[in-house]
Amino acid sequence: MAKFLTNREENYAQWYNDLVIKADMAENSAVRGCMVIKPYGYAIWERIQAELDRMFKATGHVNAYFPLFIPKSFFSREAAHVEGFAKECAVVTHYRLKNSPDGRGIVVDPDARLEEELIVRPTSETIIWNTYKDWIQSYRDLPLLINQWANVVRWEMRTRLFLRTTEFLWQEGHTAHATMEEAEEEARKILELYSDFVENYMAVPVVKGVKTDSEKFAGAIDTYTIEMLMQDGKALQGGTSHFLGQNFAKAFDVQFTNQEGKLDYVWATSWGVTTRLIGALIMAHADNNGLVLPPKLAPIQVVIVPIYKGNDQLDAISGIALELKSQLEKAGITVKYDNRDTQKPGFKFAEYELKGVPVRLAIGPRDAEQGTVEVARRDTLTKETVSRDNIVEHVKGLMDEIQKNIFRKAVEFRDSNTYRADTWDEFTDIIENRGGFVLAHWDGTPETEEKIKDLTKATIRALPFNNPPEKGRCILSGKPSERRVLFARAY
Amino acid sequence: MAKFLTNREENYAQWYNDLVIKADMAENSAVRGCMVIKPYGYAIWERIQAELDRMFKATGHVNAYFPLFIPKSFFSREAAHVEGFAKECAVVTHYRLKNSPDGRGIVVDPDARLEEELIVRPTSETIIWNTYKDWIQSYRDLPLLINQWANVVRWEMRTRLFLRTTEFLWQEGHTAHATMEEAEEEARKILELYSDFVENYMAVPVVKGVKTDSEKFAGAIDTYTIEMLMQDGKALQGGTSHFLGQNFAKAFDVQFTNQEGKLDYVWATSWGVTTRLIGALIMAHADNNGLVLPPKLAPIQVVIVPIYKGNDQLDAISGIALELKSQLEKAGITVKYDNRDTQKPGFKFAEYELKGVPVRLAIGPRDAEQGTVEVARRDTLTKETVSRDNIVEHVKGLMDEIQKNIFRKAVEFRDSNTYRADTWDEFTDIIENRGGFVLAHWDGTPETEEKIKDLTKATIRALPFNNPPEKGRCILSGKPSERRVLFARAY
Repeated sequence: MAKFLTNREENYAQWYNDLVIKADMAENSAVRGCMVIKPYGYAIWERIQAELDRMFKATGHVNAYFPLFIPKSFFSREAAHVEGFAKECAVVTHYRLKNSPDGRGIVVDPDARLEEELIVRPTSETIIWNTYKDWIQSYRDLPLLINQWANVVRWEMRTRLFLRTTEFLWQEGHTAHATMEEAEEEARKILELYSDFVENYMAVPVVKGVKTDSEKFAGAIDTYTIEMLMQDGKALQGGTSHFLGQNFAKAFDVQFTNQEGKLDYVWATSWGVTTRLIGALIMAHADNNGLVLPPKLAPIQVVIVPIYKGNDQLDAISGIALELKSQLEKAGITVKYDNRDTQKPGFKFAEYELKGVPVRLAIGPRDAEQGTVEVARRDTLTKETVSRDNIVEHVKGLMDEIQKNIFRKAVEFRDSNTYRADTWDEFTDIIENRGGFVLAHWDGTPETEEKIKDLTKATIRALPFNNPPEKGRCILSGKPSERRVLFARAY
Repeated sequence: MAKFLTNREENYAQWYNDLVIKADMAENSAVRGCMVIKPYGYAIWERIQAELDRMFKATGHVNAYFPLFIPKSFFSREAAHVEGFAKECAVVTHYRLKNSPDGRGIVVDPDARLEEELIVRPTSETIIWNTYKDWIQSYRDLPLLINQWANVVRWEMRTRLFLRTTEFLWQEGHTAHATMEEAEEEARKILELYSDFVENYMAVPVVKGVKTDSEKFAGAIDTYTIEMLMQDGKALQGGTSHFLGQNFAKAFDVQFTNQEGKLDYVWATSWGVTTRLIGALIMAHADNNGLVLPPKLAPIQVVIVPIYKGNDQLDAISGIALELKSQLEKAGITVKYDNRDTQKPGFKFAEYELKGVPVRLAIGPRDAEQGTVEVARRDTLTKETVSRDNIVEHVKGLMDEIQKNIFRKAVEFRDSNTYRADTWDEFTDIIENRGGFVLAHWDGTPETEEKIKDLTKATIRALPFNNPPEKGRCILSGKPSERRVLFARAY
C-alpha cells in the first residue's frame, strides 16, 4: 500500500494529500472546500477533543452551545472586527424551497427571503457577547468561563484537507472577566494549556509567543500563538488565544457593577484550536510509509496480526492473540486483532504502517510454540522477538518510549531547522533554499513586515516569549531592533 | 426561586418555558427560532451524548463527519424524500460580504453569488449516500455502521425551547448493508438501543412501534419510533429509526457486487435522537418546585450545603463537607459543595430543587458534633438524618433508588393515562378532556387517519409492536380492524 504514496521528498504537498486519502483520514466532498472526515480521521479528532475537554474542565471551564447563524448587522458592531476579519462567509438569504414549476426539481422560494441575512458563523464573538449582555450585571456573575465545540465556515478560495477547509470543526472559548489582569492571565493560561496538549499529546514542540499587530485577530488587543514547524520547513499556527480587552464588551454594551459599585465594561478573551491540528499531527511525524501517530492519540495503539497456514494454525494463534488482547486492554491499551482471511500478513503490515499504528505484534506458529511474539515499532520500523510472559509491561513501556521518541525527533528537527539570520542575504537564502524558522531582527514597523512578506512570502510567526533582549539591526531596513522575532513561510 | 415558576396545573406551556429559563437550561437567542443552550442544559446533553456514544460503539458503530451544506440538486434525487420532507430549509446563496458603499456597515456582495445554492442540512441522507457511492464496491465493504454528531437546521415557524427549534443538535446514524434482513435488523436494533437508553437513563417509559405511512420519514420504507407520554397528556416522539430499503441507494446509484458476484443496490437505515430529549426529560419528571433529574444524567448528583453562623462554624463544617465530597467522588458520584456566603441555606435549597439535583446533604453545627448529615431527596422531597459513618453507601443506594422511583412514577403515570376507546364519543371525550395515550381501532386508511387528525388534532403515534391482534371496528368509519393503534395529541 505504502508504495502508492508519492515520495515525501519529491512532492511534499502531494505526499500529504495522498496520505490523508490513503490512510482513510478524510476526503473532499461534493461541496467545494468542505471535507468528509472519515471514521479513522474522526477517531483522532475524538481523542483530541476528549483530552482538551478534560483540560478545559480541569481549569474551571464549562461547555455551552450558541447559534450557528449570526445576524449580519452584528458583524458591523466591532469596528476592527468587521474591518480585519475575513468577509468570505456563507450567507443565508432564504428559508424555504419549493417544487419547481416544471415539476422537475426544487427551487428557492423567492417569497421566503429573510429580512436580514444570516451569516454562518466564522467565529462567535459577536453572537456570544450579544448574549453575555443579559448574563452579566455584577462582578458576582464573573468570571464566565465558557467553551463551545462547533463547526464554523470561512469561504476559503484554496483549500487543503484538514489544513484549510471551508467548514471545519473547532472549539472556541469565550471568557468574561472583571479585571484586565484576570483576562490577560486567562489568555496566557490557555496558551500554556494548548502548548501542554500539543507537546505532550501530539508530540509536536511549539514556540510560544505573541502575534504582531498585522497578524493578530481582528478585534484583539493581543493574540498569543503556538507555532509548530512541519517537515517541509513551513510553519503552522497550532492555536491562538486572544486577549480582547474591552472591545467586544463596548461593541455590545456589556457593563457590570464592580466591587466598588461602579459600572465598568467587561474584559474578554477568546481562544480556539481546530481540526487543522490533525493536519499538523500528520505533517509533523509521518514518513514515506505513512502516518506515525503518537500513542496518546492513536485510535489503535496496538495491532495483532496472525501469521498462519490453514485453520488449525489460525485457531491456535487466535487463542493466544485474543488472550493477549484482553490482557493489554485491561492495562488500558487499545488493541485491534486483525484476523481477516482476505489479506496476507504483508498487506496488513503495510496497511497499519500507513495508518501509523504505534506497535504491531505478529504471532506465527513458532511464536505460538515458543511463547514469543514479534514486536514492531512504527516510529523506528524496528522489530524484536519478546517473550509473552512480560509482554504487557513491555508494550506499556513502548507506549511511553514511542511517545517520547516521536517528540524528541520533532524537537531535533525543529532545533536543527531554526536559524539565526543577520543579513538580508542570509535571510532570503534560508527562506528560499532551506526553509525552517528564522530568528532575525525587525524594526517593529508594519511597513517593513509587509515588505518582507511581499519579497519572500515569509511572515512574522511570533514575537517569542522566551527571546532574550539583543540589540541588532533590522534585516531589511537596517534600523535598530531590541530583540529577534520568528519568521517563516507558513501554512 | 421556585415560587417564580408558573403553576404546572394552571398553564403547562408557561410552566415549561419558565422552568427551562429559570433552571438555566436554555434561552432564546437573537436569531429567530435558534436557542442558546446554557452550561447547565448543555451538561445534560453531554451526559446523553456520552451514554449514547458508548452504546453506539458497543454495537460496532463509528463516528464520522459530513458537510454542513448540501447542494440543492441532491434533494431532488430521491422522489419521496423531496416530496415529503419539509422544504423549510436555510438556503445559502452567497459567499462573501463587503463593506457597504456608505461605509456604515456590511452588505452581501452581489458578485459572490453561488452557481448552485447550498442547503444547510436538515438531515444528511442525500450527502452521505452520495459519499457512500465511492466507499462501497463489494460486499466486503459492508456493512458501514456510521454515526454523526451534528447540528441541523429546519426552518420551524413556531418554536419552543428544546422541543422544536430552528437549529438543533442531534446524532444521525447512516448504515449500509448487503441484505434487506440485515438492514431491517439494524433499524430494529437501534430502536431497542434508544428504548434502553430512554427507559434506563432518562427514566421515561416508551411505547415502541412503527409509524403509519403518513407519519413515516420521507424516503423510508418503515419508520420505527419510541413514543413517550408527557405530564400534560401529550405524546412526544423520542427517537426514530428508519429502514430505508434501497431508496437512497437507487437515488444515488450505490451498487455493490454481492457474494454471488452480482450487482445489487445497497440496503440502508438511518436513525436519530435530538436535543429534544432534554425537553422530554424535563416534561416527564419536573414539578412545581423545578426539575427532577434522574441520577444517571444529572450534572450534579449530590449537593452539600453548610448551615452555619460565623466563620468558626463554617470552617468546622467545611472540613467535614470536603472530606465527604472526596469520599463520594471516589465512589463515582458527582458532588458540588456550595459554600457561597452570598446566599442563605433556604435560597440554596430552593435553587437546587429548581435544578433537580437528586440528593441534597445539609450539615449544621449539631450534625458536625453528632456525626450526622441531613439527607434530602429531590424526587420525594423527604428528609432524614443519617450517620456519616455509612453515608457513602447510603447515597449510592439512593442514586439507584431515585433512578428507579422516578421511572416507576413515570410508568404509573403513563399506565393510568393510557385508555382504550371503542366509540367515537369515547375517543373524543378522552382526547378533549383527559389527554393521554388512546388505544383504538382504525380502518388502516390514510383518509381516516387524516380525518381523525383534522377533527381532534390526535395523530396515530405508532402501531405498537406489543399490541395483540384484536378484531374491532374503526372508531370513525366503523370499518373492520385487526388491531388497535396508539393515538394521542403530540408535541
